[in-house]
Amino acid sequence: MNDRPRPPPPLRATRLRLHTQHQPIALMRTDCHVGHAEGLAPRSQVLITSGGREVQALLYQIDGELLAPGQVALSEAAWQALALREGDNVMVRHSPMLPSLAGVRRRIHGQRLSAQDLDAIVRDVVDGRYTDVHLAAFLTATAALPLDADETFHLTRAMVDVGQRLQWPVPVVVDKHCVGGLPGNRTSPLVVAIAAANGLVMPKTSSRAITSPAGTADTMETLTRVELDTAELRRVVEAEGGCLVWGGAMSLSPADDYFVRIERELDIDTEGQLVASVLSKKVAAGATHVVIDIPIGPTAKVRSREAAQQLADRLSETAAHFGLALRCLFTDGKQPVGRGIGPALEAYDVLAVLQGAPDAPPDLRERAVLIAGAVLELGGAAAAGDGPRLASDTLADGRAWERFQRICTAQGGLRTPPRASHVEPLAAARHGRVTRIDNRKLSRLAKLAGAPESPAAGVSLHIRLGDTVVPGQPLLLLHAQSPGELAYALDYARAAGDIVWIE
Amino acid sequence: MNDRPRPPPPLRATRLRLHTQHQPIALMRTDCHVGHAEGLAPRSQVLITSGGREVQALLYQIDGELLAPGQVALSEAAWQALALREGDNVMVRHSPMLPSLAGVRRRIHGQRLSAQDLDAIVRDVVDGRYTDVHLAAFLTATAALPLDADETFHLTRAMVDVGQRLQWPVPVVVDKHCVGGLPGNRTSPLVVAIAAANGLVMPKTSSRAITSPAGTADTMETLTRVELDTAELRRVVEAEGGCLVWGGAMSLSPADDYFVRIERELDIDTEGQLVASVLSKKVAAGATHVVIDIPIGPTAKVRSREAAQQLADRLSETAAHFGLALRCLFTDGKQPVGRGIGPALEAYDVLAVLQGAPDAPPDLRERAVLIAGAVLELGGAAAAGDGPRLASDTLADGRAWERFQRICTAQGGLRTPPRASHVEPLAAARHGRVTRIDNRKLSRLAKLAGAPESPAAGVSLHIRLGDTVVPGQPLLLLHAQSPGELAYALDYARAAGDIVWIE
Repeated sequence: MNDRPRPPPPLRATRLRLHTQHQPIALMRTDCHVGHAEGLAPRSQVLITSGGREVQALLYQIDGELLAPGQVALSEAAWQALALREGDNVMVRHSPMLPSLAGVRRRIHGQRLSAQDLDAIVRDVVDGRYTDVHLAAFLTATAALPLDADETFHLTRAMVDVGQRLQWPVPVVVDKHCVGGLPGNRTSPLVVAIAAANGLVMPKTSSRAITSPAGTADTMETLTRVELDTAELRRVVEAEGGCLVWGGAMSLSPADDYFVRIERELDIDTEGQLVASVLSKKVAAGATHVVIDIPIGPTAKVRSREAAQQLADRLSETAAHFGLALRCLFTDGKQPVGRGIGPALEAYDVLAVLQGAPDAPPDLRERAVLIAGAVLELGGAAAAGDGPRLASDTLADGRAWERFQRICTAQGGLRTPPRASHVEPLAAARHGRVTRIDNRKLSRLAKLAGAPESPAAGVSLHIRLGDTVVPGQPLLLLHAQSPGELAYALDYARAAGDIVWIE
Repeated sequence: MNDRPRPPPPLRATRLRLHTQHQPIALMRTDCHVGHAEGLAPRSQVLITSGGREVQALLYQIDGELLAPGQVALSEAAWQALALREGDNVMVRHSPMLPSLAGVRRRIHGQRLSAQDLDAIVRDVVDGRYTDVHLAAFLTATAALPLDADETFHLTRAMVDVGQRLQWPVPVVVDKHCVGGLPGNRTSPLVVAIAAANGLVMPKTSSRAITSPAGTADTMETLTRVELDTAELRRVVEAEGGCLVWGGAMSLSPADDYFVRIERELDIDTEGQLVASVLSKKVAAGATHVVIDIPIGPTAKVRSREAAQQLADRLSETAAHFGLALRCLFTDGKQPVGRGIGPALEAYDVLAVLQGAPDAPPDLRERAVLIAGAVLELGGAAAAGDGPRLASDTLADGRAWERFQRICTAQGGLRTPPRASHVEPLAAARHGRVTRIDNRKLSRLAKLAGAPESPAAGVSLHIRLGDTVVPGQPLLLLHAQSPGELAYALDYARAAGDIVWIE
């Protein structure tokens, strides 16, 4: 009884050219001899191996003649993970049990996770062993009973450990991050340009939107290439002192991509996950000095000064474990920043500030000056208290705009962001003063209009708090790249109640 | 701006013959004009409508010539929900936002759910609007912060409301349920035969296994047909006083199937969900008097008398809302019941007890007599204290066996359960006395051997607590229907540590 029966016979792989985002999928004939011998059923989680590579996939079964006997068809995610050619042999069998799931189950029932638990979970996640159900359970459990300080540190470290970690030959590497929730708050391109123009090294890697209508990477992608590999990023930073690239292409904290996809589907974003997500990327990117922008407002992600302080404490405490100098700025989160909400619309705001255009949104400029000032001070490029003035001068004299163009050119060329094909105004129904703007509803509206998947889509806001409006005056414009998306956004705008309060 | 753009043009449906369990899937060409106009991407959740029917599906995109332009391919779950014929027109667009998910998010963050919240969630679940991620989040949240009494009642009621509810023209309809966790505890077929032979009405609907190697429906399916529709069930019960069918075919508490599938993937099973699952099916099946068997043991689902009492209280309290008379029996859960663990192996134990075979497992007979006795008393067929004696007599004089055969015949004929093609013993490594048996590891072993998907697979146990064994003596036999499954079970048996303690 000690002879393990020999492994199942191989199947011939065929490429399905099926696009499923991250999800590897395998299709097997219902009458496949391997499926039968292995006891596989639809939705079995299977391990597929070929030439020393392996991937875990979700199995579906199919009748009819799409597949020949002995064939297994694979989605692109599986095909590429295994680096296959048509007709290659692959082995398909039950996925082994995942011991790390015992940790997830214990966590659901209120027990804390150890460093080892979190290492095992994160490793299995980046190896593609967790199904959507497993990922959702882990994230829900750590939202229901929030991650404590130890868990947050160990999760952050585990997320760093499974990815690439950049090293820089300078003692000071600055970075910044905004915890989000404030539509249009696109200061990063401005801060990088200002910091780099003043001699600091700022290799900025950004994420795409999680639950917002645009991330910095989405906005930058309308202006230049953002999917650079590590060698390209190094070349850009060595030449220009800064870059603005998508972090996901770099395999810095690759676990975060898995978590973000599920958080987006659930529309949840918790403190511990947020800290681990932000800091794992900063540590992996090799940052030494980081400024965090925490906007506070009734409809921002952080709603009170107390909550902001709690988040700042958790960020500082976790950063200290990694020797990271951290400064948190509490900023006004009562209304969106700039005019545009959506990748391209925000890019136009950034360009206007850089170019010193007369209609550049003054609030976006002010925030960029504030944050860049803190970065300049923390990084040692400005004396304490002198950062904002230096930042402002760097914008005013055109050095930031010049540096921004050089960075974009180094990344692959500066391009003109797209404009939406469908634009519709939402008009004021009455006369009065604008007293409140619901950031969350605005974000949802921009997302329903197609942002960030449709880069030109979103909302442009044409009023600010305190403005007086007359009936029929456009409060905002909806921008969409398809009539279907425009329709969803309009439906929502009609059903959602007040987005802009007029009293 | 008030004219909603017209709906997207229809696509021609083609049947993919893709088996995915419950999950409706749609495949669209990457260059599909509708996908483009609607802003659809891989993993978009889409609403597909045709001829007044609708289904929510997960969208994948495909390149190449599998689909002609203007075609959309559908999995069997989607095809059947829409009752399509090849080439029928269907409309595909973004799924509308799900307001009930706001309740799930609030629940994740610790707020209780109202009756209305739970109605909306359960309705969306049975309408197939929840993705696996949404289902996993709901179940995880209600495991992390357990459902309270009100939530449990409202969830139970909501689950009853979305399904069929049977009515019986008699004042007393008995039922029983075991909360599980004890392998081989297959008393239901015996209890139904005894109750029906004594004139009670017992329309037993059972589930398939959740996290165990066999449910009563899995075991009964090796003996007769269990997928009866309501009219057939009525006919069987009117003729024989009892039945033993799969509840899932009857659309009693259809939400439970969705929950069970995810609970199985997570391997979690919480008190509130358990109460709602059990009672929603009993109420929907029209039961008036129900006996609940709660086995207690260190490796059973319920580990202490206190936990059993808490569960019994929650069950009684919830049952009272529905006017259901409930009696809970606390039974010995220290070791498996009978010899077989797995659908067919348990069926052979049941047959042996019914037939009064000399080697029939005495512990299974005793438990059946205990539970059937309580059912007879609660249902008024025996005086208080006299139920067990009557139950025992009904087995001894062959009336239970006769009634069981008549019920199986009425359901479609009694058949012989299958035997496994691969059987391997696990032998004692040393001399000593059996002091402990790990029910959980035994269940896992039986599942790895292929139970319940492979009905003949599982484990047969050849020792009991207190037995003295000698080295080389078989403790149990592994039964599998494929060499692959036998191998997984053997691997686990070697790695899992003690399953049977010998001291």
